[in-house]
Amino acid sequence: MTPHPRRRRRGDDRREQIIDEALKTFADNGYRGTSLAEIADRCGLSQPGLLHYFPNKAALLAAVLDYRDRLDYDRLGFDQRLRGKDALIRLAQLVDHNMHVPGLVRLFTVLTSEAVTADHPAHEWALDRYRKLQVHLAGALEAGIADGSIRRDIDPAAVARQVFAMMDGLQLQWLVDPDTVDMATLFRAYIDELIAYIT
Amino acid sequence: MTPHPRRRRRGDDRREQIIDEALKTFADNGYRGTSLAEIADRCGLSQPGLLHYFPNKAALLAAVLDYRDRLDYDRLGFDQRLRGKDALIRLAQLVDHNMHVPGLVRLFTVLTSEAVTADHPAHEWALDRYRKLQVHLAGALEAGIADGSIRRDIDPAAVARQVFAMMDGLQLQWLVDPDTVDMATLFRAYIDELIAYIT
Repeated sequence: MTPHPRRRRRGDDRREQIIDEALKTFADNGYRGTSLAEIADRCGLSQPGLLHYFPNKAALLAAVLDYRDRLDYDRLGFDQRLRGKDALIRLAQLVDHNMHVPGLVRLFTVLTSEAVTADHPAHEWALDRYRKLQVHLAGALEAGIADGSIRRDIDPAAVARQVFAMMDGLQLQWLVDPDTVDMATLFRAYIDELIAYIT
Repeated sequence: MTPHPRRRRRGDDRREQIIDEALKTFADNGYRGTSLAEIADRCGLSQPGLLHYFPNKAALLAAVLDYRDRLDYDRLGFDQRLRGKDALIRLAQLVDHNMHVPGLVRLFTVLTSEAVTADHPAHEWALDRYRKLQVHLAGALEAGIADGSIRRDIDPAAVARQVFAMMDGLQLQWLVDPDTVDMATLFRAYIDELIAYIT
């Protein structure tokens, strides 16, 4: 079969479309609960057609995670070297933004929880992501200690772990019960008290 | 086939065995990633044999969640009417205990995250569980305000949500990276600071 020229999509567009549909399907049903056939179907492709772009489900997962990380790290201002409380305020802004992108939040929550078992293809990603986030925020807090804006007696590594735990835990409650739980307000209140305590 | 009398298990024992194997399988692979055939196999039963005890996968899930909740609410001291900071200290003890039962913690994390979609059979359970926990802890904090041991200007409902968020978020980091993350120490530090702030 020769593809009809008007129905043919450029390779990059098609890749983007596949990543987008895969993201939604993983977010709804998890990685284990999703089949390549289902994603192919949502893209209007045959399964061999999909495999032309991504050789297997794990490769497609990697592309989805990579896409999500780029969005995330941009919003976290990884490249801006925020210091001390500015890094915490940026996180509160991120949670505010997240209330408008429930699909991306759900993707993160569903995949990270599935990935707690060591044999899951996203396990290394989850491990690496928490370590990166922790190093990033602990570094920002240490910079605040160095310039005198943050108390010397806090443990930056522990505070960083706690901040991301609060963020993830509130996301989970919000996803389960979005009409009741206002995660942005709850997280902002936590961050405000934390800033009051550590500065 | 007549079952061999020595290999026959009493109904209750068999039910317990099925719940136990289902719990492990759901914790490893999630609800969507688990088949009844797999659980039957782990129990040394045929699939019709398993269906004799539980008519479908959702009924088995309900039994597993019910079993887990009873353990949980016992440990939380739901019946003891703890007040103010005693309820918070009890939670820190629970997290300490949880480090010895990773399978139960994983079950909770995997199922709650899957259950964020409204069509999941554990969705109502997750919604109800968070609301119950929040009412329980907010009530304990209100009792502390009433007896003068806790500041009047805190928001008990918000603090309760934050405390369970911190617990869940640290559990997730611990499950992903158990060698690095000491969730009991991190949670205890959070609770100690919270108590210092609200009393």
